[in-house]
Amino acid sequence: MKTRTIILDAFGTDARPNPEIMGTIMALRENKNLIIKLVGDKTRLEKLLSKFTYDKKRLFIINADEEVAMSDSPTKALKEKTNSSIAIGLSLLKNGDGDAFISAGNTGAVMASALMKIGRIKKIQRPAIATIIPTPYGETILVDAGANADCKPNHLLQFALMGDVYANVIFNKEAPKVGLLSNGEEKEKGNELTKQTHKLLSKTDAINFHGNVEGRDILSGDIDVVVCDGFTGNIVLKTVESIFKFIFRLFKTEVSKNIFAKIGLLFLVPTIKRLLKTMDYSEFGSAPLLGIKKPVMICHGSSDEKAIKNAIKFTLRYLEKDYNKLLENKLELLEEKK
Amino acid sequence: MKTRTIILDAFGTDARPNPEIMGTIMALRENKNLIIKLVGDKTRLEKLLSKFTYDKKRLFIINADEEVAMSDSPTKALKEKTNSSIAIGLSLLKNGDGDAFISAGNTGAVMASALMKIGRIKKIQRPAIATIIPTPYGETILVDAGANADCKPNHLLQFALMGDVYANVIFNKEAPKVGLLSNGEEKEKGNELTKQTHKLLSKTDAINFHGNVEGRDILSGDIDVVVCDGFTGNIVLKTVESIFKFIFRLFKTEVSKNIFAKIGLLFLVPTIKRLLKTMDYSEFGSAPLLGIKKPVMICHGSSDEKAIKNAIKFTLRYLEKDYNKLLENKLELLEEKK
Repeated sequence: MKTRTIILDAFGTDARPNPEIMGTIMALRENKNLIIKLVGDKTRLEKLLSKFTYDKKRLFIINADEEVAMSDSPTKALKEKTNSSIAIGLSLLKNGDGDAFISAGNTGAVMASALMKIGRIKKIQRPAIATIIPTPYGETILVDAGANADCKPNHLLQFALMGDVYANVIFNKEAPKVGLLSNGEEKEKGNELTKQTHKLLSKTDAINFHGNVEGRDILSGDIDVVVCDGFTGNIVLKTVESIFKFIFRLFKTEVSKNIFAKIGLLFLVPTIKRLLKTMDYSEFGSAPLLGIKKPVMICHGSSDEKAIKNAIKFTLRYLEKDYNKLLENKLELLEEKK
Repeated sequence: MKTRTIILDAFGTDARPNPEIMGTIMALRENKNLIIKLVGDKTRLEKLLSKFTYDKKRLFIINADEEVAMSDSPTKALKEKTNSSIAIGLSLLKNGDGDAFISAGNTGAVMASALMKIGRIKKIQRPAIATIIPTPYGETILVDAGANADCKPNHLLQFALMGDVYANVIFNKEAPKVGLLSNGEEKEKGNELTKQTHKLLSKTDAINFHGNVEGRDILSGDIDVVVCDGFTGNIVLKTVESIFKFIFRLFKTEVSKNIFAKIGLLFLVPTIKRLLKTMDYSEFGSAPLLGIKKPVMICHGSSDEKAIKNAIKFTLRYLEKDYNKLLENKLELLEEKK
C-alpha cells in the first residue's frame, strides 16, 4: 500500500481535541503506511500527546492559532479567522503537503474555505456532501447531506451524477440506482425544485434514474443513491441517526424495569451487538465534499475517537480510487452527448 | 356524549373499501352515539355490508360513482371527478349533513376540494396537516405534514399558530413549545425559507418559540410542535414511520436465526408489546386539515381497519373542542397586538 499523508483538523469535534488525538494514535497503530499532520494549537497538542506512545516519525503537528466555532458564519470564518485549523489545513492540502484534509468542524466553514482555497472541479456548480447510510440490506448514499441549503434543479442533477460515480468508486456498483427524494412516488409529486429536477434526470441517460423515492426508501436498500437538497438531506440524516439511538435507549430503559426482560436480554446480547454493528454510522466516519478539486472529508461534530479513527481509515479507502478523474470523465461524456 | 355524524370516504385507502367498512362497523359497536355516512359505490358497499351485523339505524350509504386515484392531480380530481367520494363527502359536510369528513384518499385532492367547497378560516392563507408523532416522552405535533410542498415564511408562521392551538386543544398544553425544523440549532442555520420564518416567529409573543430544532428533536419529546413546509414534513414523517417498522422486522429476522435469541425473546414479549403500543401511529389514525372552516381529517393511504376505527374515534375527540373558534380567537389576538 502506498504511503498517504492525511491532514487532520485537531479542533473540529465537540470534544476537541481529544477524539482527534486518540483517533490519530489508533489510526497510526493500525496502518504503517500512514502519516498524519495534526493541525491546531501546537502547545496544547504537544502537551496532550506527551502522554502517549506513538511513531513520532509519522505524526506532525502544524500550529494553528484560531478555532472556528459552530456558530461562526462561513463568511466570518473565511475572512476573520485566517489562522484557523480549517484555513491552515486546507492551505497545506492546496500546496500538496498532504493527500486529503479531514475536519469534524463547522461544515459551512469547511465548504466555503475549500471552495476558495482548493476550488471546484470544472463544470461542477456546487460541491455536495455524500453520506453513507448503512442498512442490513445494503448501503444507501445520501447526497447532498448538508452542504447546500438552497438548491436549483441543475445542482441536484449534478449531485445525482456525483453520487452515481461515488457509489461506483466506493461500492463497485455499475449503474447504481438513483432516486430523487420527494413527498410521493408519482412524478407529479414534489416541490417546484424536485419537479424541475425530475424532468432533467429523466432526460439524461448518464444516470440509472428510478424516479421519485420517499422517506421509507432510504433504509430499504433498494436505492443506491438518494438525491436531495442539503437542507432536507441534513434533516433526514439527523432524524435517522436519532431514531436508532432512541430505540436502543428506550429498549434498555424498558428492559431494566423487569427481571424477566433482563434474563431475556442476556440471551439476545450477540444478536443486538450484530445489529448495532450493521447500523453503526461511525463505521464510515467521514463523508467527502464531492466536486472539490482535492479530497476534503467532513465528519460529525459528535465524532468520538473510534469515529475519527474510522474517518481516517475510510479516507485511505477513498484515496485508493481516483474519484475526481472518474467524475471528470463522466462529465465529459455528458457534454459530448448534448 | 352528544351524537355525532361522521362522513367517511369509503374509497380512500389502498385496500378500499374493506378497511373503511370494517373500521366503520368496529367504531359503531364501540360508540353508541355515533352515526356514520359511508360515501362510495352504493351497490358494492351494500353487498359487502350485507355480510355483517350492525345497527342499521346508524349507518347510511351515500352513493358516489367515481374514485379519485392517488396519481390524479388535485386539479383533475376537482374538475373532472365531480361525483367522486371526496367531492360528494365534502358537499355533505358543506350542507351540514355531518360534523366531520374523513378520507384516506389522495391528500392533494382532499385539500383542493376542501378549499373550494368548504373554504379557509378568515386570515388563514394555507391550511396544513397536523400529524401527531407519539414518543414515550410525550407527543410531538408535526405541521405541515404534507399539504403544502412549497411555502412562504408567512405560511410557516401560520402553521406554528395552528399547531400551537392544536397542541392546546388535543393535549391541554398551555403555551406549548414550538420549534422550527432546520439543518442546525443556530439561528443563522437554515434555508432561505426558514431563515425568514425564524425572524417572523422571533417577533411574535403569541407563540412560545424555541428557535430552530433539528431532526433529532422530533422524537426527543422536548418540543411540542415542530413546524416545517409540507415537503420536508412528509419526507420526515415517512422516514420515521419506516424506521420503526424496519427495526422491528430486522430484529425478528435476526432473532429467528438463533435458538438462544428465540428463548430470550420469549421473556421480552411484554416489553416489546408495550414499546410497540407506545409508538403505534395508528393509535391516532387521522390528522386534521387545520385552517379549513369545518373539520376535515386525513388518514394514511395504508390505513387498515384498526387505523380507520381509531381515525373515527380520534375525530370524535377532536370534535369535543371547538378548534376553529379557538384559532379564530388567537388570530384576532395577534391582529390586535400589531
